[in-house]
Amino acid sequence: MTKVRNQQSLRAHNRINILNLIREKGKISRVDISNQFSIDKKTVSNIVDSLIRESLVTSAGFKESVAGRRQELLQINGSHTNYIGIDLGATHIIGILTDLNAKTLDRVYYEIRPGLSVELIINQMKTILDKLLHSKNATAPIESVGICVPGFINPKAGISIISENIPGWQDVNLKEIFKREINKPIYLEDSSRTLGLAEKWLGHGRNQKNFIVLDLGYGIGMAIFIDGKLYTGYSYKSGEIGHTIVKVDGEKCVCGNRGCLETVASGKAIAKEALRAIKEKKSEILYGLTHGKAESVTAQDVSIAASMGDKFSINLLKTAGRYVGVALANAVNILNPSSVIIGGGLIKSGNILIDSLVESLKKNTMMGIIDDLQIHISQLDVDGSALGSALLALQHIFDFNIPAG
Amino acid sequence: MTKVRNQQSLRAHNRINILNLIREKGKISRVDISNQFSIDKKTVSNIVDSLIRESLVTSAGFKESVAGRRQELLQINGSHTNYIGIDLGATHIIGILTDLNAKTLDRVYYEIRPGLSVELIINQMKTILDKLLHSKNATAPIESVGICVPGFINPKAGISIISENIPGWQDVNLKEIFKREINKPIYLEDSSRTLGLAEKWLGHGRNQKNFIVLDLGYGIGMAIFIDGKLYTGYSYKSGEIGHTIVKVDGEKCVCGNRGCLETVASGKAIAKEALRAIKEKKSEILYGLTHGKAESVTAQDVSIAASMGDKFSINLLKTAGRYVGVALANAVNILNPSSVIIGGGLIKSGNILIDSLVESLKKNTMMGIIDDLQIHISQLDVDGSALGSALLALQHIFDFNIPAG
Repeated sequence: MTKVRNQQSLRAHNRINILNLIREKGKISRVDISNQFSIDKKTVSNIVDSLIRESLVTSAGFKESVAGRRQELLQINGSHTNYIGIDLGATHIIGILTDLNAKTLDRVYYEIRPGLSVELIINQMKTILDKLLHSKNATAPIESVGICVPGFINPKAGISIISENIPGWQDVNLKEIFKREINKPIYLEDSSRTLGLAEKWLGHGRNQKNFIVLDLGYGIGMAIFIDGKLYTGYSYKSGEIGHTIVKVDGEKCVCGNRGCLETVASGKAIAKEALRAIKEKKSEILYGLTHGKAESVTAQDVSIAASMGDKFSINLLKTAGRYVGVALANAVNILNPSSVIIGGGLIKSGNILIDSLVESLKKNTMMGIIDDLQIHISQLDVDGSALGSALLALQHIFDFNIPAG
Repeated sequence: MTKVRNQQSLRAHNRINILNLIREKGKISRVDISNQFSIDKKTVSNIVDSLIRESLVTSAGFKESVAGRRQELLQINGSHTNYIGIDLGATHIIGILTDLNAKTLDRVYYEIRPGLSVELIINQMKTILDKLLHSKNATAPIESVGICVPGFINPKAGISIISENIPGWQDVNLKEIFKREINKPIYLEDSSRTLGLAEKWLGHGRNQKNFIVLDLGYGIGMAIFIDGKLYTGYSYKSGEIGHTIVKVDGEKCVCGNRGCLETVASGKAIAKEALRAIKEKKSEILYGLTHGKAESVTAQDVSIAASMGDKFSINLLKTAGRYVGVALANAVNILNPSSVIIGGGLIKSGNILIDSLVESLKKNTMMGIIDDLQIHISQLDVDGSALGSALLALQHIFDFNIPAG
């Protein structure tokens, strides 16, 4: 390694550290940056000046220092660039437009009707992209686009390999498809991992190094952070907690195995059990809620029925929560994280499920490990994964080590 | 950061990389080192000369280069320092003496009779340490000592917090106890993790970055390697696969929970089932093997009975293997490692258990993840964890980033 190369890499290293410190602190002065990293003030000023020239950093007013001298505060310039995040789920497509501070500027929501073809789903995604590309709320040019889909992906090729909960969805080259729409970098990730990114940047994952994020929805996934970084596994397939087995010889799963967590506790499994109950006349409340259209019953209906005192629905949610707690305890016993963040669409289904889940998690995690564990319920709304998709794109500004999309 | 400090750290960085390359390659020339790292030959020669002066590296003869010029080969000098590794298990204590190349120079084995007191166990460990300290096979002074115990530990304080399978063992300050015997650095680790270290340095874990090592013995543990490093979790309690739940509402476990893997598949669980079978006259062969002393039956006896065609024993081993496969598949579905290494005392119990385990692992891991997984059976013998304990000590020579013991 030559000395010049090394000094260049030292400067690049300092530049990224300073940029991230400004982001994390919100507002900070040059002096405080210098103190934080033990880098001399001249070097800090050089780097900050160049960040200001690049429009990445901007002034945030002044604060009085102890000595009475005014110190300029610095902040990330949100209007440096804009980003689009698109979340394709089993039941919805959400697109959002953000600035460089991950502030949502615009949003498009589209519900997926059961049985919608792959082609129509892709067309709808394109329409959403187009709407956001022409949003009146944009504050800067679009720099790049992040897309998330549940299931196995090939991030380099930009291919969504399989998404079991979207019928017919296989080997969809989203990068190629969207490159034709917008000639900008396109990044692809699993939607549980983008939910994890949103928690890491904006939620309970801030300042945490080793933690996991449960994505409890129509399917069930998990994001794992190790040493502050998203862990994706050897071949980008980590986090399949929905397909860990909680019932040996249990019911058949879409994945081909038996007794997976998703067969007893996902939004899909809850809806399936509810349908059975309506057909077998086990719940009049559920029957009434679906107005005779039993096939349309969702986990949300079960949650409403439970809040109305429906015993079948209460038991169904309790049982689901209990099994999620077992699978999550198993993951915690293996990974010993500092915290678990419970998120995803199903957590909006009221407290019965969550209370049962947390109780089961506490009961089934080893003593010693549970004592060291923080349990958080996600505060991100349904846009969590879409927001994480925008972060998937904009994070490249803050870390040159992340492989290009 | 000042320029001087940075250049010092660059040199230290290069020095460690060169030392590790020599270790990994076994024998290598200065030119090949220079090519490997793109570091100029003069820098390489400076560092190598200083490593030779420190006696860490020594000549390994010469090879002819393409140009016909002789190139000196370099190797790690095993006789630089010696190390002691002590493995305290539920059924044995093993001590080994190694050189810097992790070559075993001497070995002491001691079987633990059931009911041996904590005090007598510690005394026996001291006796083993003393024997190795005075070994005639030593090739250099002892640099440090590594100790492993199954269960939760506090590595900094050197305290073995709890080892559920050793009755009465709690908050034993092994560092303090052994500091009185030998005034050298003492390192402490969980024994599944030291087995993992042995696989990483000397077994199937070489050249692997993300992999797991199953330690299937009297208890069941796991070592996790992420990005080439041992992953220990937020509070040093990772890898408790033995206490992941495979049977909701199953049998009570020593940990207080129900249905843990250890209740159906450990050496302890197999022995317990065998004892029940003898008492209930379900296996004449097991009864015969234990000569009427039913209480002394071990998993090893079950393995022998199975090889003699005893149906009860065959089923018992098959069932155990099946459940281990489920728990391991769950860990693989979460971590998506490049390989799983199956090790520990029980793998010597013949093929019935292992075949059933591997079949179950393959069946219960998701398609896509299993396709990318290598499955290895450990080739390390019963000394694996003891050898890993010596590596726990000697690894400090090769990595300044590992926290001091």
